[in-house]
Amino acid sequence: MYSFASDYLEGAHPAVLEAINKTNDVQSVGYGNDDYCFNASKLLKNQLERNDVDIHYLVGGTQTNMTVISSALRPYQAVITVDSGHINVHETGAVEFTGHKILTRPHINGKLHIAMIDSILKENVDEHMVQPKMVYISQTTEYGTYYTLNELKELFQYCQNHHLYLFVDGARLGSSLVFEDAPTLKDLANYCDVFYIGGTKMGALFGECLVIVNDELKTDFRYHIKQKGAMLAKGRLLGVQFETLFSNNLYFKIGKHENECAEILRKGFEECGYTMYVESKTNQLFPILDNKTFEYISKKYIMTFMFKVDDDHVCVRLVTSWATSLQVCHEFVEYLKQMS
Amino acid sequence: MYSFASDYLEGAHPAVLEAINKTNDVQSVGYGNDDYCFNASKLLKNQLERNDVDIHYLVGGTQTNMTVISSALRPYQAVITVDSGHINVHETGAVEFTGHKILTRPHINGKLHIAMIDSILKENVDEHMVQPKMVYISQTTEYGTYYTLNELKELFQYCQNHHLYLFVDGARLGSSLVFEDAPTLKDLANYCDVFYIGGTKMGALFGECLVIVNDELKTDFRYHIKQKGAMLAKGRLLGVQFETLFSNNLYFKIGKHENECAEILRKGFEECGYTMYVESKTNQLFPILDNKTFEYISKKYIMTFMFKVDDDHVCVRLVTSWATSLQVCHEFVEYLKQMS
Amino acid sequence: MYSFASDYLEGAHPAVLEAINKTNDVQSVGYGNDDYCFNASKLLKNQLERNDVDIHYLVGGTQTNMTVISSALRPYQAVITVDSGHINVHETGAVEFTGHKILTRPHINGKLHIAMIDSILKENVDEHMVQPKMVYISQTTEYGTYYTLNELKELFQYCQNHHLYLFVDGARLGSSLVFEDAPTLKDLANYCDVFYIGGTKMGALFGECLVIVNDELKTDFRYHIKQKGAMLAKGRLLGVQFETLFSNNLYFKIGKHENECAEILRKGFEECGYTMYVESKTNQLFPILDNKTFEYISKKYIMTFMFKVDDDHVCVRLVTSWATSLQVCHEFVEYLKQMS
Amino acid sequence: MYSFASDYLEGAHPAVLEAINKTNDVQSVGYGNDDYCFNASKLLKNQLERNDVDIHYLVGGTQTNMTVISSALRPYQAVITVDSGHINVHETGAVEFTGHKILTRPHINGKLHIAMIDSILKENVDEHMVQPKMVYISQTTEYGTYYTLNELKELFQYCQNHHLYLFVDGARLGSSLVFEDAPTLKDLANYCDVFYIGGTKMGALFGECLVIVNDELKTDFRYHIKQKGAMLAKGRLLGVQFETLFSNNLYFKIGKHENECAEILRKGFEECGYTMYVESKTNQLFPILDNKTFEYISKKYIMTFMFKVDDDHVCVRLVTSWATSLQVCHEFVEYLKQMS
Repeated sequence: MYSFASDYLEGAHPAVLEAINKTNDVQSVGYGNDDYCFNASKLLKNQLERNDVDIHYLVGGTQTNMTVISSALRPYQAVITVDSGHINVHETGAVEFTGHKILTRPHINGKLHIAMIDSILKENVDEHMVQPKMVYISQTTEYGTYYTLNELKELFQYCQNHHLYLFVDGARLGSSLVFEDAPTLKDLANYCDVFYIGGTKMGALFGECLVIVNDELKTDFRYHIKQKGAMLAKGRLLGVQFETLFSNNLYFKIGKHENECAEILRKGFEECGYTMYVESKTNQLFPILDNKTFEYISKKYIMTFMFKVDDDHVCVRLVTSWATSLQVCHEFVEYLKQMS
Repeated sequence: MYSFASDYLEGAHPAVLEAINKTNDVQSVGYGNDDYCFNASKLLKNQLERNDVDIHYLVGGTQTNMTVISSALRPYQAVITVDSGHINVHETGAVEFTGHKILTRPHINGKLHIAMIDSILKENVDEHMVQPKMVYISQTTEYGTYYTLNELKELFQYCQNHHLYLFVDGARLGSSLVFEDAPTLKDLANYCDVFYIGGTKMGALFGECLVIVNDELKTDFRYHIKQKGAMLAKGRLLGVQFETLFSNNLYFKIGKHENECAEILRKGFEECGYTMYVESKTNQLFPILDNKTFEYISKKYIMTFMFKVDDDHVCVRLVTSWATSLQVCHEFVEYLKQMS
Repeated sequence: MYSFASDYLEGAHPAVLEAINKTNDVQSVGYGNDDYCFNASKLLKNQLERNDVDIHYLVGGTQTNMTVISSALRPYQAVITVDSGHINVHETGAVEFTGHKILTRPHINGKLHIAMIDSILKENVDEHMVQPKMVYISQTTEYGTYYTLNELKELFQYCQNHHLYLFVDGARLGSSLVFEDAPTLKDLANYCDVFYIGGTKMGALFGECLVIVNDELKTDFRYHIKQKGAMLAKGRLLGVQFETLFSNNLYFKIGKHENECAEILRKGFEECGYTMYVESKTNQLFPILDNKTFEYISKKYIMTFMFKVDDDHVCVRLVTSWATSLQVCHEFVEYLKQMS
Repeated sequence: MYSFASDYLEGAHPAVLEAINKTNDVQSVGYGNDDYCFNASKLLKNQLERNDVDIHYLVGGTQTNMTVISSALRPYQAVITVDSGHINVHETGAVEFTGHKILTRPHINGKLHIAMIDSILKENVDEHMVQPKMVYISQTTEYGTYYTLNELKELFQYCQNHHLYLFVDGARLGSSLVFEDAPTLKDLANYCDVFYIGGTKMGALFGECLVIVNDELKTDFRYHIKQKGAMLAKGRLLGVQFETLFSNNLYFKIGKHENECAEILRKGFEECGYTMYVESKTNQLFPILDNKTFEYISKKYIMTFMFKVDDDHVCVRLVTSWATSLQVCHEFVEYLKQMS
């Protein structure tokens, strides 16, 4: 059985693991104040062409989301996202645990539109209601789509005009960076207030690299990290990993590779006549399968069951990663075609 | 410069790192439901001779403390510890962030005594005050001392009689396990409600292995872990590491080794006429140095400054670990003697 | 200008005020442990024909909701309600402030249906999502409708089967109690886990009378009240008021009176050809008015603007109370008819 | 039996009650936006000779403390007070429930000294510890003492120099205002960041009048009030009461009266040779009684038992209020003398 269930099924990219091995015996100070973290941040700042951002390294996505959101909001303020947003569905109420309401609207292809934010602002007008103060989006979204640079610019402009922070969850950022119309890392630094560059799903053992652009969000951020239990004792591990990912274009290469793998699967499904629940170009696919095909594939491959479309069809998710080989994708397609 | 500042200055014990390398390409399910975690738990259960405990793996100590404490307490309940307790001083109010008060008494050699708990219970008697419900101790303590089996038994008996949970933070548990009068892992399972076996400070890259003994504390614990951002996506990394630490007595060997290293330093200080702030046998030493000696040592070695004793003396901390060599300790002592 | 904006525009019902005056000089112990509270609870228990319930008195509705919900739920658990639920919209995220997510579905005439709860349960299935544990409904609802006894029974049966607590917010309970098909106070005690009998909107200066039926929710409840700042020092004021409201059927008489007032207004609107946004029989009306009528009425009467229906129409709310006179309602209708 | 147990045993001062009666039938908008609140604030601003302060009315002390403190602090920040501070002992962890640690030092006669704050600041130096940001004191203190104007000035100067907010809990403010060396209301507005003028213990049925001086603490404060369940629906009741208390010097007269009552008791105890646990001049007395006297008094009067001094002596508390008559105090003294 081979699994396409997610992009965190294996350990780390060989280059990342090698760096961890190589530096294992070196002594360094704890909690992210080490040279590896410093160097990783320097590499990233060069790439962003910005020296004025603050960079922090946290262990996981839910942790990063709850730390950023709770640090940015006053107790009565809320964060806006789509109903399918990761913070709204898949984080066991971590944001609410920190005291904040999440205001939602139904997503369109996984994305949040300005009109949705606008209708939320129009509803929340006085002190009997929470005060919206942050907008949370994911790049790429839960449905594998991505915001184009233009879409991001417009969202940010709207947020600026309405005194809202824009926060971009980049757990799967890598697979968007390779598209020409998508924001680059530099664009992200220019068109949002805070974002993170995912490591866990992009070849690291773990780790998310947080970039704080807006000065208002920078104050005492290490206190927030520590209080949320998110400050790794051996923080150098995060530095070592991101130093590697930000060297030799590795991060971009991984993004490109996983998209290529996904493209093979996508074309395979299309050639066999299957449609997608949402059209996406990145490393997540959401084909709609008839029950028989679902059963047939499931004999050899693991996918994530999403939901029943009707009595005869289901929607599933397949995800590719740095660890997926082109060959395994071709084999999958061949296997699929044998059925049809 | 060689650093004795803490026991998390290097990466992982070679055996742990080797296991991470070896398993890197294997696919496994996420979030700690993998075979490595299962196997590590099986090894531990055998050692505890208990099949009825629940075992979970978290990333760090602050995270584990806040997750355990907030999961065990009702909103109006409090946890008792000494003033020097890690949760009271060094976790940026993480426990309070989860809504709970910490009730303290001044420590005696880092330890909590029954009389302290008793005086707290006598003060907190009605609904205008918080209700004490949990006792938190560290094995070993912040001052390198350890609770003997008898002391643990008495504390647990008292807690049982007063409907208090007893929680043992074992971030540095390994260095206590080698003493004859200290509780074994099996003893811990019998004489407390919940405890953890530290990995971060005991040769792992990171990770704490939590053992829940009391059934009342087991319900839906994975929900608590996830909500606190403490569920590692690639949870297998925790399984792989603890599987290694629990094999071939590695965990005990590391504890023994770091104590041996500390013993060399301790004798060195004693022979040179220095006294200790607190007498301890484990891998943490707290010598009191005159300012001149402090300066002299600081030219070649990094220690942690604790506090000024008087105008002429300071108290410092030295810590040994799996990564400390006997040789480096002997060299330190020689260097110390050259001064005297 | 006369205001129909809400049912808390005046002070207290004369009988309530008289009781406060009469008892003003008597000394009593604080925090609700006084004889007045005891007597009020005794009167209520007789009415409920239940001696096994716990009764507490709190000051306001938001306070009561947040105290009950946060006391009933474990940190990762959530409460279910309709999108228009008071806790979801009009309490500035008080429930989220206590750490809990609110799961919603769009209301039908202000009400929650079993099918909505069921779809929420089907979505929230594992530890990556919050765990629904409580259902919150209001009697009467935000749209002036009420749950019939049969509806309440079915909801409670469903909740029982699915291990959910059923919590009834009775801020406006009085206006439902007079209907034959609505649950009585005794029915409420039999078909939910916890409910409260509103005072603020039913003739008291302030105060909500909480009835805890389910033993699981009773433990240490006074600790919860105190911690949320909801324990009134001069708690006797709550006892005095509810003792009065529960004597001589005053509570029921007030409910009947406010409904009679509303009925006059309702018939007036109907006779003039206006339709209601939601059909209701209680003290809240939601007529849809053309802009001209809205302006015309607004010259002499204050109503609550709800929302724009279209460019030419608005939905408004009128509320009657113990302080509304039949005469003022008749005058309103006459005024309305003069326009038409 | 006559009770000296506290200053909230009766209802309201007759003038306050009369005002509530007189205004009962008037319609007003809810939630503190009414004319009564506006007028009360105007009266107070005149007295403070400050138009730039924000004034809010809340129901009770614990509620006010938790709302102010949680609104002023960022999640990782802490509040400093003495160990006997009301927020530290008698509020069931309400401050911790909002997520904040309380840092304490042992009180000296109920008071906090600058040296105590200073030692706390010296200990809390980096992101592994909470960051002290607010100082909380009570005027008068839990032991009936008061801060002089000079002491307040020095505390405030220290706080200003160290970027700490100074918050004065004035639940019993009235009994300090009559002393020449104590800060006036105007002084309070000049020498702290936020304070409140207690109503509950000063002749109101309930209510605390909060004065926010520092602009940083003013933003969206009504959101905080509402979220904490502290916004009274019939907020006019607070306005009506404080309008009365701030008219005709009533607030000061009550303070003076209760001190006079206390003075009679104090002299009585002194003449009979009893000493006080803490010397105070306000409406709280803490005599140390031998067991026999304690029993003797307890036959006719209720006092609050504080603690056992030794096997033969106890410390008790007596409190006087607006409702205490000079006569009842003289009778008490006579009764006391009959024993001696």
